[in-house]
Amino acid sequence: MVVVGNEILSGKVVDTNSPFLAKQLRAAGVVLDRIVVIPDEIEVIADTVRSFSAEYDIVFTSGGVGPTHDDLTIAGVAAALGRRVVRHPLLEQSLREFFGDKVDEPKLRLADVVEGTELLTDGNARFPTFLVENIYVLPGIPEIFQDKVTAIRDRFASDPFHLRIVYVRHQETAIADFLDATLKAFPELLLGSYPKLNHPEYKVRLTLESKDAQYLENALGKLLELLPDNAVVRQE
Amino acid sequence: MVVVGNEILSGKVVDTNSPFLAKQLRAAGVVLDRIVVIPDEIEVIADTVRSFSAEYDIVFTSGGVGPTHDDLTIAGVAAALGRRVVRHPLLEQSLREFFGDKVDEPKLRLADVVEGTELLTDGNARFPTFLVENIYVLPGIPEIFQDKVTAIRDRFASDPFHLRIVYVRHQETAIADFLDATLKAFPELLLGSYPKLNHPEYKVRLTLESKDAQYLENALGKLLELLPDNAVVRQE
Repeated sequence: MVVVGNEILSGKVVDTNSPFLAKQLRAAGVVLDRIVVIPDEIEVIADTVRSFSAEYDIVFTSGGVGPTHDDLTIAGVAAALGRRVVRHPLLEQSLREFFGDKVDEPKLRLADVVEGTELLTDGNARFPTFLVENIYVLPGIPEIFQDKVTAIRDRFASDPFHLRIVYVRHQETAIADFLDATLKAFPELLLGSYPKLNHPEYKVRLTLESKDAQYLENALGKLLELLPDNAVVRQE
Repeated sequence: MVVVGNEILSGKVVDTNSPFLAKQLRAAGVVLDRIVVIPDEIEVIADTVRSFSAEYDIVFTSGGVGPTHDDLTIAGVAAALGRRVVRHPLLEQSLREFFGDKVDEPKLRLADVVEGTELLTDGNARFPTFLVENIYVLPGIPEIFQDKVTAIRDRFASDPFHLRIVYVRHQETAIADFLDATLKAFPELLLGSYPKLNHPEYKVRLTLESKDAQYLENALGKLLELLPDNAVVRQE
């Protein structure tokens, strides 16, 4: 995911789009490998999108889409792919119908896309999503971003991850060896260990994940067997 | 900023460290140029930190510090710099004093640092911050991350950014040309335009910034002169 946004880098706005996308992709069984936040600069957008598009199966961009000077994502993606920016006739027609005699050049800029962009009309999104090569170009406004991601998320659905959570009463240092031993026996297990300060109930939250439900249960069994008797506060 | 965290990429935890750092750096007058979130993998950490350390003046890492299998940041930073991981004698001594006869290998791992690491004891942080070359190695637990950033932030203080905010009643498409004209007259102005859906008061929030207070006031004057008479809802 490529987040385009000076407002995030400068601490004026908290990015809620990447957490939303991360959650949606995980629920769809898709691994999100990288999130990068970059400034509103055409060359930086172009370089980043070019390398992500080559490296990953799918790229999502967020932000920098609109009619003002700081909306440079379309131009950046075009430069990344060596394509032109063109006005999409269908979008232009919609805008002319919607705005009537109030249509003008800044409004028509909303119809500009990278040449060869496919307009996705999945689901109930109010405005189509732009797909060019393996790049989904999404807007920064959280409501519209979420609307579009929700509309297109079935495209990515794969086998889900199964998740078990174990809350532990002991410090990480007291259980580190048991985690290592569990991973030695179940090397494909996705195992996370997250200490929590000052929680009345537990000190560490362990997350166990796999796409193979039986493998997960076996790994969980191994871990529970290794942990000291009273270590587990509860499981989810 | 390099955020190390499978838990963030998999949507289990929302990263609050990068928004915190972004805000603190901005307040100190420092430009944050890039945030990247990467998985808990030594090679990815090493590659990312190596390229960031070469490209930027200062690098902050967040997460992946601790005694368990998924705490790989120290090893990754060491690999990035071609250095060894060593046990720091002062930290080892503190841990031995603190834990007494309960000290063991997993606890002593908290004393492992990249060779040549400087221990910063600025401010009131409970535990020193690790600095190696231009890389500040910070923990992922938000309370401790914030504690340490607050302790070291005076190191980076530079001329502050001055900020003015203008809330506008019109859509972005109606003001785009005035923003362009303002930037043409004041090319050094940092100008952001952020539409807000369904707000009862305004449609766009404009942020104007500069390190030069007089330049900012002049640019703001120009913008206000260009905007239609009743466009401005309020200013901050």
